[in-house]
Amino acid sequence: MNNTICEMFGIEVPIFGFSHCRNVVAEITRAGGLGALGTAYYTPEQLEMELNWIDERVGGKPYGVNLLLPQKFETVGQEKLDFDKLPEEHVRFVRELLDAGGVPRLPESERESLLREALDQLHMTPEHAGELLDVVLRHPNVKLVVSALGSPPRHILDRLHEHGIKVGAMTGKVQHALKHKANGLDLVIAQGTEAAGHTGVVSSMVLWPEVVDAVAPMPVLAAGGIGRGRQMAAAFALGAKGIWCGSIWLGTRESDLPDEMKELLWAANAEDAVQTRSRTGKPGRMLRSKFTEAWVQPGAPQPLPMPWQSVLSTEARLRFDRAVAKDFMTCPVGQIVGTMRHETSVRQVIYDILAEFGETLVDMAELSDEVAE
Amino acid sequence: MNNTICEMFGIEVPIFGFSHCRNVVAEITRAGGLGALGTAYYTPEQLEMELNWIDERVGGKPYGVNLLLPQKFETVGQEKLDFDKLPEEHVRFVRELLDAGGVPRLPESERESLLREALDQLHMTPEHAGELLDVVLRHPNVKLVVSALGSPPRHILDRLHEHGIKVGAMTGKVQHALKHKANGLDLVIAQGTEAAGHTGVVSSMVLWPEVVDAVAPMPVLAAGGIGRGRQMAAAFALGAKGIWCGSIWLGTRESDLPDEMKELLWAANAEDAVQTRSRTGKPGRMLRSKFTEAWVQPGAPQPLPMPWQSVLSTEARLRFDRAVAKDFMTCPVGQIVGTMRHETSVRQVIYDILAEFGETLVDMAELSDEVAE
Repeated sequence: MNNTICEMFGIEVPIFGFSHCRNVVAEITRAGGLGALGTAYYTPEQLEMELNWIDERVGGKPYGVNLLLPQKFETVGQEKLDFDKLPEEHVRFVRELLDAGGVPRLPESERESLLREALDQLHMTPEHAGELLDVVLRHPNVKLVVSALGSPPRHILDRLHEHGIKVGAMTGKVQHALKHKANGLDLVIAQGTEAAGHTGVVSSMVLWPEVVDAVAPMPVLAAGGIGRGRQMAAAFALGAKGIWCGSIWLGTRESDLPDEMKELLWAANAEDAVQTRSRTGKPGRMLRSKFTEAWVQPGAPQPLPMPWQSVLSTEARLRFDRAVAKDFMTCPVGQIVGTMRHETSVRQVIYDILAEFGETLVDMAELSDEVAE
Repeated sequence: MNNTICEMFGIEVPIFGFSHCRNVVAEITRAGGLGALGTAYYTPEQLEMELNWIDERVGGKPYGVNLLLPQKFETVGQEKLDFDKLPEEHVRFVRELLDAGGVPRLPESERESLLREALDQLHMTPEHAGELLDVVLRHPNVKLVVSALGSPPRHILDRLHEHGIKVGAMTGKVQHALKHKANGLDLVIAQGTEAAGHTGVVSSMVLWPEVVDAVAPMPVLAAGGIGRGRQMAAAFALGAKGIWCGSIWLGTRESDLPDEMKELLWAANAEDAVQTRSRTGKPGRMLRSKFTEAWVQPGAPQPLPMPWQSVLSTEARLRFDRAVAKDFMTCPVGQIVGTMRHETSVRQVIYDILAEFGETLVDMAELSDEVAE
């Protein structure tokens, strides 16, 4: 294919893939799409290592990174995140929930350091974001930077553009997409509410064409609810120039999710990808588990505001992940989880999407002839 | 066009439209689609009048009706619905909310009879459903009956089929769609969470292709999030054989909504169509207003279970509708409300959808050629 987006990045197929896992990112790019690495929890040293690893595998092909580049650091970085500052009621609720579920506590000898390490990853400052950016700019195969927290500040946008990097932003609202356009970004990723993680409330079917019309001729990537070729065809019918997928890679062999987590995903239906405030305090879509369910039972405490629910859920996650407690384990995933049924590979996912996309276009062409008659 | 669905009903375009308003229903059918009348609140005499009115206008063309035909009448009809049985706290909450908003109370002289009349409409029994069905069967232009409460009981399905009437059901879940197929229905209407009123949680982008694959070769109509031709094209790309629209007619001149309600819809964005339990007790999508918002404020009482929240909201609705209190007025509407901007006509809506649908098919055909190269 050779559309606006393929030309913009010199890629073969307009399939973008987001992952926290470098193997997935590299493999998407190698298959002719463009992989984008989620970098939220990296130190600059770790990020340098990850990007070097990808560079070695993509043979000069382009890839991207997602950075947290907010205009302001209001909710993060102001106050030291500490487990001791959590309300006693909430700490007890989580502890008793996991105790009752037979999930072992963290060993006392390791608890402090495990928590500290996890909390340090949550601590985001402008300095830290700047250091990550410096790492990115030293890697010339990075051709796309995506912000998940609004348009990046002007000086950062300029630096990225000077390095020949295109800049995009996730958006769940038309008004935000218009801001991104006004701020000089190169593309927006319109993400429907059916996607994984923090999203807006508007569905892809409604959001995509609204955003496409609002920011035209700026290209729009469609995100949320795409895991197969029919959905890619729908995205193009709705005016998108490419697709942005996240959840669909979670079940591939390149994904570094634990096997038990993958098995939970393969067994899940679309309605098991629930909106929950249990992890960060803000509604985000994740796989339903005893942990997400506990917070919507009568008598459960209200989840804490950001970033404190993340601090609170940290120990719980460490506990159920280390114990491989399948009843409690969860991860962010979108509603297309219902179409993931067994292990596959990144390349197979892309081939399957493209094959069904091609078939659907043929069907649509026949329909077009019928309508014209 | 001449696909499965057009052949099944002898219609010119696979556009189905749901409305509580007979003018809208007749006009959709006259324009070559198939209008379906919502009948929830009719007496048999009223329904007879409405269907006669439609018959006189459609010149023998087919139309449909939505009936409440549950397998069991568990939540309704068992207990006499009465305002006096409501919890005092809830009654006070609603009264004070509207008092504080300056919405006049109902005149004491009329209050009792107004409430009685409204509550009688909520009182659904198997006998009543049977009487409505008898009315429907006397109207040979009715070619489609849609159940909004699961598959109808077998004996009703058989009677409908004997009269040459096709039977469909709304569904928001793959598992329900499979049941409808097993029960011998003729089609399903897969309705995404972005639709108006009571819906499931799965979005159209994810739900439609799942349902299409699950019930093939049974035809699927796509509902939820469709208001324009791009969305119709997306529905076909996702495997649907026709579209089912509800919200898009609300802003037409044929719609009997008050002008003030129409103006509220034209001013709304997609995210103003919120899921709320304020009207029936079950989450349903409606236009955000001071009434829907009040129920999610801290300290608000929990909405009552069905059918009691409907009883509770009855007086409120009578108050704010009679007073034309625009801050409080609301109606069921889907997220495509964001694309409704001014008064149009049913026929214009259909022409606009078809024109954009045709353009989109041409674009897709070009894309198909590109991919093939």
